[in-house]
Amino acid sequence: MSTFRTVGLVARNGSELVRESLDRVTAFLEERGVEVLMSREAATFADVSYGRVSDTPEMGANCDLIIAVGGDGNMLGTARVYAPYQVPIVGINRGRLGFLADIHPDDIDSALGAVLAGDYTIEEHFLLEGEVSVKGNTEVPCALNEVLLHSAEMPHMIEFDLYIDGAFVYNQFSDGLIIASPTGSTAYSLSAGGPIMHPALDAVVLVPMFPHTLNSRPLVVPGDSEIKVVVGSHIGATARVSFDSHVEFEIEPGQALTVRKMSRKLQLIHPPGHSFYDVCRSKLDWASRIGEG
Amino acid sequence: MSTFRTVGLVARNGSELVRESLDRVTAFLEERGVEVLMSREAATFADVSYGRVSDTPEMGANCDLIIAVGGDGNMLGTARVYAPYQVPIVGINRGRLGFLADIHPDDIDSALGAVLAGDYTIEEHFLLEGEVSVKGNTEVPCALNEVLLHSAEMPHMIEFDLYIDGAFVYNQFSDGLIIASPTGSTAYSLSAGGPIMHPALDAVVLVPMFPHTLNSRPLVVPGDSEIKVVVGSHIGATARVSFDSHVEFEIEPGQALTVRKMSRKLQLIHPPGHSFYDVCRSKLDWASRIGEG
Amino acid sequence: MSTFRTVGLVARNGSELVRESLDRVTAFLEERGVEVLMSREAATFADVSYGRVSDTPEMGANCDLIIAVGGDGNMLGTARVYAPYQVPIVGINRGRLGFLADIHPDDIDSALGAVLAGDYTIEEHFLLEGEVSVKGNTEVPCALNEVLLHSAEMPHMIEFDLYIDGAFVYNQFSDGLIIASPTGSTAYSLSAGGPIMHPALDAVVLVPMFPHTLNSRPLVVPGDSEIKVVVGSHIGATARVSFDSHVEFEIEPGQALTVRKMSRKLQLIHPPGHSFYDVCRSKLDWASRIGEG
Amino acid sequence: MSTFRTVGLVARNGSELVRESLDRVTAFLEERGVEVLMSREAATFADVSYGRVSDTPEMGANCDLIIAVGGDGNMLGTARVYAPYQVPIVGINRGRLGFLADIHPDDIDSALGAVLAGDYTIEEHFLLEGEVSVKGNTEVPCALNEVLLHSAEMPHMIEFDLYIDGAFVYNQFSDGLIIASPTGSTAYSLSAGGPIMHPALDAVVLVPMFPHTLNSRPLVVPGDSEIKVVVGSHIGATARVSFDSHVEFEIEPGQALTVRKMSRKLQLIHPPGHSFYDVCRSKLDWASRIGEG
Repeated sequence: MSTFRTVGLVARNGSELVRESLDRVTAFLEERGVEVLMSREAATFADVSYGRVSDTPEMGANCDLIIAVGGDGNMLGTARVYAPYQVPIVGINRGRLGFLADIHPDDIDSALGAVLAGDYTIEEHFLLEGEVSVKGNTEVPCALNEVLLHSAEMPHMIEFDLYIDGAFVYNQFSDGLIIASPTGSTAYSLSAGGPIMHPALDAVVLVPMFPHTLNSRPLVVPGDSEIKVVVGSHIGATARVSFDSHVEFEIEPGQALTVRKMSRKLQLIHPPGHSFYDVCRSKLDWASRIGEG
Repeated sequence: MSTFRTVGLVARNGSELVRESLDRVTAFLEERGVEVLMSREAATFADVSYGRVSDTPEMGANCDLIIAVGGDGNMLGTARVYAPYQVPIVGINRGRLGFLADIHPDDIDSALGAVLAGDYTIEEHFLLEGEVSVKGNTEVPCALNEVLLHSAEMPHMIEFDLYIDGAFVYNQFSDGLIIASPTGSTAYSLSAGGPIMHPALDAVVLVPMFPHTLNSRPLVVPGDSEIKVVVGSHIGATARVSFDSHVEFEIEPGQALTVRKMSRKLQLIHPPGHSFYDVCRSKLDWASRIGEG
Repeated sequence: MSTFRTVGLVARNGSELVRESLDRVTAFLEERGVEVLMSREAATFADVSYGRVSDTPEMGANCDLIIAVGGDGNMLGTARVYAPYQVPIVGINRGRLGFLADIHPDDIDSALGAVLAGDYTIEEHFLLEGEVSVKGNTEVPCALNEVLLHSAEMPHMIEFDLYIDGAFVYNQFSDGLIIASPTGSTAYSLSAGGPIMHPALDAVVLVPMFPHTLNSRPLVVPGDSEIKVVVGSHIGATARVSFDSHVEFEIEPGQALTVRKMSRKLQLIHPPGHSFYDVCRSKLDWASRIGEG
Repeated sequence: MSTFRTVGLVARNGSELVRESLDRVTAFLEERGVEVLMSREAATFADVSYGRVSDTPEMGANCDLIIAVGGDGNMLGTARVYAPYQVPIVGINRGRLGFLADIHPDDIDSALGAVLAGDYTIEEHFLLEGEVSVKGNTEVPCALNEVLLHSAEMPHMIEFDLYIDGAFVYNQFSDGLIIASPTGSTAYSLSAGGPIMHPALDAVVLVPMFPHTLNSRPLVVPGDSEIKVVVGSHIGATARVSFDSHVEFEIEPGQALTVRKMSRKLQLIHPPGHSFYDVCRSKLDWASRIGEG
C-alpha cells in the first residue's frame, strides 16, 4: 500500500489546461482511494466533487504528498510554502519550464501510479533564506531559485560590498547581484551568464548583473557560506531585495542583506526515469547544433 | 588666429572640483581674448566675472566651440543638446569615465592652448534617435550612447519582436534590449556583453539583456539600419524606453520603438595625441594580467 | 535572355548527395542551353555527359557564374579561388552550415531558374588578406571567414602585440587571436564569443582566444583598418597563422602578421527571398526558447 | 617545538630569483635547526651547504613539509608528485600567478617562522585523475587544475559524447572540453568562461572550448561524479588528453577518458592571514573599475 494516504492539490493559474489536469489528478486519486485536500486557490476553478477544500497549515500538517499543477512558477511558490512542513512535492507540468514540474499531463495516470506504488526518486533541493531589516522589523523570506539585490529601476546602478563568511570579497558597481541555489542556476542566473549547477551540489552561485568592471565573473561558493551584501551610498537608484522575483523589499544604503541556506529542504519527487541531464538536453536544446537540419 | 572666437561653457555638477576647473578654463579663455558664454546651470556655481550667462539657443547659434566640464555623463547631455546645432564639443574630464571627456584638469592650459591654435582632431560620433508614440504624440528623443527598451521593473521579463529594415529578426523574452552606437559600446552595452566598437564605425549593436534563450548573441548591423521593436503582450511588467538612461517613456504592448541614426553628428574635439586605443588601454585596464605584479 | 551564358560547376566532396545534386544542376543547365565548365575535382565523381572539364584560370576567365555544390566549407574554398576573377558565385547547400550556400537541393530547378531569369540579389562579401613572411618569402593568402594567429599546440599560450593603423592596442597572452570578417562572424569567431555581424558591414572583429586577462573583449574596427600582430618572445609554443583553417604557416617570435581587407570582393548570388536574418533564425535556432515545447 | 622536523625543498626554474629565495629558505631552516632534503633539480642550481640532496621517494616518505619555490606552475608539478605521499606543501611565490604559492619572497622569514611555530591553516585541494587507455596500457595520470580533452591541432574541432555517472549528457562538436577542479577554476577554465569556484567546494566544472552550439554553458557537478568522455568519429583532427597542460596522450575515436576525484588530497599550507577572496581581489584585479583613477 502506498505511503501517500493523504495528498494535497495546489494550483495557481486557472487556465483551462490547468483545470483539466487538476480534474484528471482528482479522478485518478479518487479511483485509488487516496484522501484529497485541495488548496482554496485551486478550488476556485477546479472540480471538488471528491476530497475537500483546506488551508495551508492543515495541508502542511496532514498531507503525505503535495501535487502541484502548473509550471515552474507554481512549483516555486509551492516549495516556499510547503518546504517548512517537510512534505514532499511532485509537479504536473503545465508551463514552459520544467526543471521542477516534470510529469507531462498525458502521463498523469502512469507517473502518479508509479509514485503511489513507491516507484520514485526523491531529490532534495535546498532553499535560501535572506535576512533583511525592513522598517525596524527583521524579515527572513526564503527563495528556491534566487535572492536578488538589485536596482529598483533599470538601468540604474547600485553599489554594494560583498562579504562571505565575514571576509571582504569586493565592492561592486552594477545593476545588482544574483545569489542563486543550484535549483536557480537554470533560471535567471543562467540568463545572466551563470553556470548550470547539478541540483545535488551543495553550492551557491553569485552572478553580477551588468557589472561596471570587466573582470567580474560568476563565483561559486560552498552551500553553507554566509553571504552578506551591504548596500553602499554611491547608488543611482533605490535598491531592492527580491526572493524568486516574488517577495520584494526596499533596502536602504548602509543596510545589509544576509543570505544563508535554509535547514529545511524541499523534497521533490520524480517519477521513474528522471534524469537532470535529460531535462537539460530537452529544455536547453542541447541536441541541436548550428545549422543542423 | 583661432577659428574658435566664441566659446560656450557648460557643466552640470556643482562640485568643488568642477567649479575649480570651470574657473581655470574661464581664466584661460579671458587671457586669450576669447569671448565666453556660460550656461545658466554652470553659472549657478561658477565665477562669471568674465563672459556672460546665456541660454542654449543663443549658445548653439553663436558658439564655435562648447567646452563641457564634468564626466562622460555631462558629455552625454551636452552632446544631445548641442549636436543639432553642429557645434564641436571638447570635454574636461572630472568624472570616472573618460571616453568622451579626455582633457585632464591639470592639462587645461596646454590642451586648450593647442586646440585654440588649431592643433586638434575632430572625431565624429553619430547619435541615435528613437521614435515612439507617447499618449498620442510622437516623441523622437536622441541618445549618444544607447536607446533601451526594458522592463520597468527588474527582474521581470518583457517580450518583443525585432525587425531590421522591415525584415523580421526574432521574437525575444528578456529583460530588454540595448541598441547602442559605437560611442555607447564602451558603456552599458559593454556591461551586458557587447563588443567594443571603434568610434569611427558606421554600425549599431543590439545586445539582449538577460535573454530567456541561450542562443542570443550581440548583433552588429549597418549604421543606416532601421531598427524596429514591437512590444508584445506576453510581458510580465510595464515596458519602458530610455535614452542614455536619461529621458524615459512607458511603452504599451503593441506599440513600436523605431531607432535610426541621426543625420546630425556630434563633432568631438580631441587635443593632440588622442588615441581611442590608448583610452581603452587606460580605462579598461588592458595592461594588467591575472596575477601580475 | 540570361546574362549567365557560361556557368562553372565546382564541388569538393564526392558524396552520393553531392554527386546527385551536381547531376541535377547539369541536367537543368543543359535543358536551358547554358554552356557548362566543370572543375577537374567535380569531374572525378560527377557525370560530364554535358559540358566539359576545365581548370581554374579558364573557368575564372570565361564563366559568368560559378555554382558551388557542397557546404559552407566548399564555398569558402571556392570564394578564395574565384574572388580574384570577380565571378559571382551561388551555392547549393549539401553540408550542415548554410550562411553562404543557401539553395536547398530540392529547390535547384526553381531557384536556379529564377537566378538565370535575372531574379536574384547580389551580396558582396569582402575577404581578408594576411601578409606574413615565411622563410624569407612574403606570402599573402586570403580568407573569407577569418585569419587566425594561434598556438600550434593547445593549450599552450602565445604572446603578441596588436597594432591597428599603426597605433598600439595591447599586448596579450592567450591561445591566439581571431581576426574575422562579417562573413566569418557566424563561424569560428561566434564560438569564441564574438558578435554576429551583418554581411554588409564594413568591419572586422578581433576576438581573443582564451585570454589570460579577464578584461579582454571582442573589438570591432572599421573594415579598412590595417591590423598588425607581432609575435612576442614569451611564448610557450610555436605560433601559427591560418586562413579559414585551411592554409597554415608557422610564424617566428619577432615576426608580424598584417591583415587588410582585399580589394576584390566575393559576389555571392542569392535566389529571391533571401534574408540574412531568416538564415540566422533558422541556423542559430533563434525561434526556440528554454523549455518551450 | 615545530611538528615540521624534516623539510623538503623543491624548485624547477633555475632563475637567479628562484636560486636566491631557495638560499634564503635554506639559511632560515638551518638557523632553526630543521633538517633539510633538497630535490635533485633544485640542487643543480642552489646552494646545498646545508642539508642534503635526495629523491622523491625518500622526500615523500621522510619529509613533514615540502617547500616549493617558484610559481603556480611549479606548485602544480609538486602537488602531482607529493600528493600521494600526503605531505603538506607550502609555496614561495616567484612566478606571475599566486593562487597556490602565496608567500612573497620578502616575507620568507616571518611567514615560514609562523608556519614552523604552528601558526598556519591547511587548505585541502583535491586532484583529478583521468583514466585513459594508451596503446593497450591503462594510464591514470592526475591533475591539480584540469584534465583536458582537446583537438591536437587548432583550430580543428573534435566530437565527443559526455556521460556523467552513467547518464548521457550531450554530444558535442567543439575544440575540446575542460574538466577542472575548484583549484583549476582560476586557471585555464576561467579563460574559457568558467566560473570561479571556492577551493573548499566539492565540485568539478566542465567548460566547453569553442563549442559549435550557442547553448553550451559551463556545467558544475558534484565532486564525486564519474565523468566519462567518449571520442567520436566525426573529428577533424587527432584528439588529445592533457593533465595540467603537462602530461599528454593521444586518444583514438571510440576510446574513453574517465575522470574522477582522487582520494588523496593536496594539503596546502597557508601562513596566517590567508584569504581566498583577498587573493582573488589582488590577482583578478577586482578592486579596479572601468575608467577609475
